[in-house]
Amino acid sequence: MCQLLGMNCNTPTDIVFSFEGFRRRAGLTDSHSDGFGIAFFEGKGVRVFRDDKPGHNSPIADCVKQYHIKSLNVIAHIRKATQGEVNLENTHPFIREIWGENWVFAHNGNLKTLPDMSDSLCQPIGTTDSEAAFCYIAEQLKNRYRKKPTEEQIFDTIREITAELSQYGTFNFMLSNGEWLLAHCSTNLHYLTRQAPFGKAQRIDDDGVIDFSDYAKDGDKVTIISTFPLTKNEKWIKMEHGGFVFFKEGEKIREILGEAKVMEDDGTLGNRTYVAA
Amino acid sequence: MCQLLGMNCNTPTDIVFSFEGFRRRAGLTDSHSDGFGIAFFEGKGVRVFRDDKPGHNSPIADCVKQYHIKSLNVIAHIRKATQGEVNLENTHPFIREIWGENWVFAHNGNLKTLPDMSDSLCQPIGTTDSEAAFCYIAEQLKNRYRKKPTEEQIFDTIREITAELSQYGTFNFMLSNGEWLLAHCSTNLHYLTRQAPFGKAQRIDDDGVIDFSDYAKDGDKVTIISTFPLTKNEKWIKMEHGGFVFFKEGEKIREILGEAKVMEDDGTLGNRTYVAA
Repeated sequence: MCQLLGMNCNTPTDIVFSFEGFRRRAGLTDSHSDGFGIAFFEGKGVRVFRDDKPGHNSPIADCVKQYHIKSLNVIAHIRKATQGEVNLENTHPFIREIWGENWVFAHNGNLKTLPDMSDSLCQPIGTTDSEAAFCYIAEQLKNRYRKKPTEEQIFDTIREITAELSQYGTFNFMLSNGEWLLAHCSTNLHYLTRQAPFGKAQRIDDDGVIDFSDYAKDGDKVTIISTFPLTKNEKWIKMEHGGFVFFKEGEKIREILGEAKVMEDDGTLGNRTYVAA
Repeated sequence: MCQLLGMNCNTPTDIVFSFEGFRRRAGLTDSHSDGFGIAFFEGKGVRVFRDDKPGHNSPIADCVKQYHIKSLNVIAHIRKATQGEVNLENTHPFIREIWGENWVFAHNGNLKTLPDMSDSLCQPIGTTDSEAAFCYIAEQLKNRYRKKPTEEQIFDTIREITAELSQYGTFNFMLSNGEWLLAHCSTNLHYLTRQAPFGKAQRIDDDGVIDFSDYAKDGDKVTIISTFPLTKNEKWIKMEHGGFVFFKEGEKIREILGEAKVMEDDGTLGNRTYVAA
């Protein structure tokens, strides 16, 4: 398994405070040491840094820390390999061009099998289930819509493909085209939105403290999504199993609550699907 | 216009000596200051560093220098924008997946027009003629061969597509899939192969000196391809207009000499195409 970190905001934001806690889980506070990667959108372009070395001491991760890149959408991943060797081509996030846009994808989980893709135009380069799943999503989207459809159609189609792929195993993932960021939770994903009044936050992994009021201005909205919470004193929302959230400009603009165990009238625990627009 | 730098070798090699001369042309010894990029193959994976700042003082380029990444195939580019704004998505090299491989492409030149690609599955993300040309090559290759064909078929097909695109303007480019590196010359490309006995080389751009015998071992073959020579005291081969070279493991394994002006029997200068396998 692995861990995921994402950011979606309405103003270019430096993710280093969150990333510095997150990367400690890649060999110090946790054992996700089989490579790391981080992708920063800049307009339609992407800066991507990957290493097959542990994120906590990778020189490439030091470089990321040093340059304080600001971005509206970021996806990062620390890997604990389940399928596929530890090497660069198996390191998330993965990138593909869809409808003339960079799409960035990272996955935490394990898909035991996948649909046949031998005739797909979009082929995985490495040997992970994650990249293959992303290629399947890309192929399906391109086949169903030759031109870019509406955001609603994109969201609904990805939801449909995700339901299909989720049958095969654990499928927590984040996906972004630089305009929006979509998160799907099979088992663990948490998020929070920072906005005025900004305050202090203390990291879980090394007690590092920041006062966001020193950096942010009124109107800024910064959503952070992470496998597990990164700070001690902020309220993280745990996503439900099967839940979907679609973030844009730092705001949650669409949500599927997923399946939650609820008490039925007869007193047993059942599954119900809650859908909210 | 822009400048190109490539490396193809039979042993993982550090390109920093060449890159340090090359990047000085991005704002110091020449004016290619509209961004830079460099892609290093590592197995089937690629490390790519890009910046829309000038290569000579980009912090990302400093990071590349610092970590001495070793690779069998490298493509780098410093940009002087002709078409497309100065931003990250317009920064070479460009990457696409073809037949489950990373393909890396960089271009020096200017294509005034391009075939209609509105229905292509492979679409450019930015607004350069270069990325559009690469997408055209990728689309054609995928359409003609659903599965990866032989190297000979790849080479011949790219040659055919290149002849078509070259009608539209200047088209110096380098292309690599991590196994081989292909260079096409419209106007300016030079190369040399370093092999035993290794000696000293002195950079043109800042007089930096290296003794390759301190680093290389017998049997190593390292080919460097560059728009203009990077060293003073080595023999660079100037490619002919229309020339093609296919390098693998540091060796030239196939070459098309291109068109050279030759004296005809009647004393006039004519075009003849020389082909060598």
